[in-house]
Amino acid sequence: MSNPSLLILAGDGIGPEVMAQVQRIITWYGDKRGLNFDVSEDLVGGAAYDAHGVPLHDDTMAKAQEVDAVLLGAVGGPAYDDLDFSVKPERGLLRLRKEMDLYANLRPAQCFDALADFSSLKTELVSGLDIMIVRELTAGVYFGEPRGIFEEGNERVGINTQRYTESEIERGARSAFELAMRRNKKLCSMEKANVMESGILWRDVVTEVSKDYPEVELSHMYADNGAMQLVRAPKQFDVIYTDNLFGDILSDCAAMLTGSLGMLPSASLGAPMENGRPKAMYEPVHGSAPDITGQGKANPSACILSFAMALRYSFDQGEEADRLEAAVEKVLADGTRTADLMQAEGDTPVSTEEMGSAIIAAL
Amino acid sequence: MSNPSLLILAGDGIGPEVMAQVQRIITWYGDKRGLNFDVSEDLVGGAAYDAHGVPLHDDTMAKAQEVDAVLLGAVGGPAYDDLDFSVKPERGLLRLRKEMDLYANLRPAQCFDALADFSSLKTELVSGLDIMIVRELTAGVYFGEPRGIFEEGNERVGINTQRYTESEIERGARSAFELAMRRNKKLCSMEKANVMESGILWRDVVTEVSKDYPEVELSHMYADNGAMQLVRAPKQFDVIYTDNLFGDILSDCAAMLTGSLGMLPSASLGAPMENGRPKAMYEPVHGSAPDITGQGKANPSACILSFAMALRYSFDQGEEADRLEAAVEKVLADGTRTADLMQAEGDTPVSTEEMGSAIIAAL
Ligand SMILES: CC(C)[C@H](C(=O)O)[C@@H](O)C(=O)O
Ligand SMILES: CC(C)[C@H](C(=O)O)[C@@H](O)C(=O)O
Repeated sequence: MSNPSLLILAGDGIGPEVMAQVQRIITWYGDKRGLNFDVSEDLVGGAAYDAHGVPLHDDTMAKAQEVDAVLLGAVGGPAYDDLDFSVKPERGLLRLRKEMDLYANLRPAQCFDALADFSSLKTELVSGLDIMIVRELTAGVYFGEPRGIFEEGNERVGINTQRYTESEIERGARSAFELAMRRNKKLCSMEKANVMESGILWRDVVTEVSKDYPEVELSHMYADNGAMQLVRAPKQFDVIYTDNLFGDILSDCAAMLTGSLGMLPSASLGAPMENGRPKAMYEPVHGSAPDITGQGKANPSACILSFAMALRYSFDQGEEADRLEAAVEKVLADGTRTADLMQAEGDTPVSTEEMGSAIIAAL
Repeated sequence: MSNPSLLILAGDGIGPEVMAQVQRIITWYGDKRGLNFDVSEDLVGGAAYDAHGVPLHDDTMAKAQEVDAVLLGAVGGPAYDDLDFSVKPERGLLRLRKEMDLYANLRPAQCFDALADFSSLKTELVSGLDIMIVRELTAGVYFGEPRGIFEEGNERVGINTQRYTESEIERGARSAFELAMRRNKKLCSMEKANVMESGILWRDVVTEVSKDYPEVELSHMYADNGAMQLVRAPKQFDVIYTDNLFGDILSDCAAMLTGSLGMLPSASLGAPMENGRPKAMYEPVHGSAPDITGQGKANPSACILSFAMALRYSFDQGEEADRLEAAVEKVLADGTRTADLMQAEGDTPVSTEEMGSAIIAAL
């Protein structure tokens, strides 16, 4: 049997820096655990624009469709701020999500014991926090037509369309319920059904799907209240299911509750391929961090933990995923910290590479 | 000259309970300060539905258009959960906002000194917090057409339209810049210009308007980052300008940062009427709170502070507004607390009416 294949799209800013550490981890898995991957690399975002004039080349798109998993670093940066909307770095990312049909975006908001007091929130409100947000990722206002800036009378009008079919809502809901079954059997669905008809359909469909999961306790919440409740008492939540736009905002809000954005991974999953594996892309929640690019300061943990999610969701290596996650936790518990995890004045941060080495040593 | 007119729409749940205390304050202003208002009352939300089968009667709408200011309590409740979308209590509120053309929704997120440790956030992150969110309130996805649930092939599709014209963005922006000029001359505009064309137009127009306010320092932020930054370091913000839907979520998030939702007022302002006063509606940020309705427990402060905003923005009584706000702060500093502001086990809460009396005594 051939090795599972992995396409690495390191992207822009600190993307390549953190990805270099993942590469070392992948090598470690081959050397020490006999777990080999066929790794290829390509460009995305600004890097692809610089090389090809588009944020994702068609050949790269085709490769992404063929591999078992894509691992993405980060896209964007100030050099690309003035580019036309259609070639902005983000469009490369959105094209991958859309064409690979990665409808279930899993965003854990987890508070690491060693970092509990990093949160803006009072420690007792977040210590032990472990939420999984499932964000629908291929539809909604991100992709709905009509969209654009049009002339109307003597002024311009900006239009985007929030659009959800039953089946789009349903398949994401099934992913969320499946996750809930493996966790605490509690799911909260968020929309604005009091204001938007698409939210009414959302609530309807989620309620319908819940009949197949009678053990899961389902609740519904308006998204504005969801934002409040996340800040007020985040531990009331286990799995949250919400749409593309609300998910963007609420998952970032939840991520920030943990106080350590540099630690948070994500998985974007689609339908099973012929080999039974889901179409999949993994990426850290943090962005390209232009302010620290090239300084060897970036925290590679989120990208490494994204690879752990790949081990779990794409490669059926749940135990190895646990091992890698435990290694990261151990390094944190030992007090090894990149600059983003510094609190006290006197602490000396380790570099990106040193953090990678520490995690490998802990494996 | 005739007295300024005020239409009170107490609405549902705790709405009438908190409004009763505002009525006492209004009476106090007449008796003690010679400041008289022509007050009329009417129904909105579930209460209007019960009486008329619609959440806002046309006669009420007509009255709202004529008065100098509307003061609204709260709408909605579980009794109305199964109503059809078109007659839900919220539609009454949205109709008022739309037909009165109240485009600038001012939502202060202010942390009261006496309550600084009520926040979920670490006290030093929020003490002294004083943000003003200006939310565009008459356009965007709340009102855009087409909207609805349609049949498509053999399934349903839910559609809403995010739609902003230049002039809609501009007039709200002007309100926000005017406020910024009277505050700390700092304005942050939030959208998703990296994903939505309507966000690109938003950013364009706000940048254009900023040329008329060269003293105001303008920044732009993606709304997901905005949610993060609000949690991470809210005191970085002064005035925030954002659209109807983002504003709904971000203002609730910001409100919750203060830890005392029962304290927060809002003003929704439109264009100047013939008498120079803006069309205006004032309402507390909290909802109808069905769980405590009828128990005399509700905190009337948010509704009373909404009346203070009316004094300031509709009735040119800035000093009286200051006086009323100071009275509320004094009562808090004295330790008088309704049940929502209880922390220690042994504390005894005061009733809605006692809180009203305390504020009047402090005036
Ligand atoms: C970069 C941007 C297009 C993206 C999004 O809005 O989805 C990001 O914010 C995210 O959450 O992954
Ligand atoms: C009640 C509801 C329609 C309303 C809104 O979504 O605008 C509320 O959440 C608010 O923020 O005033």
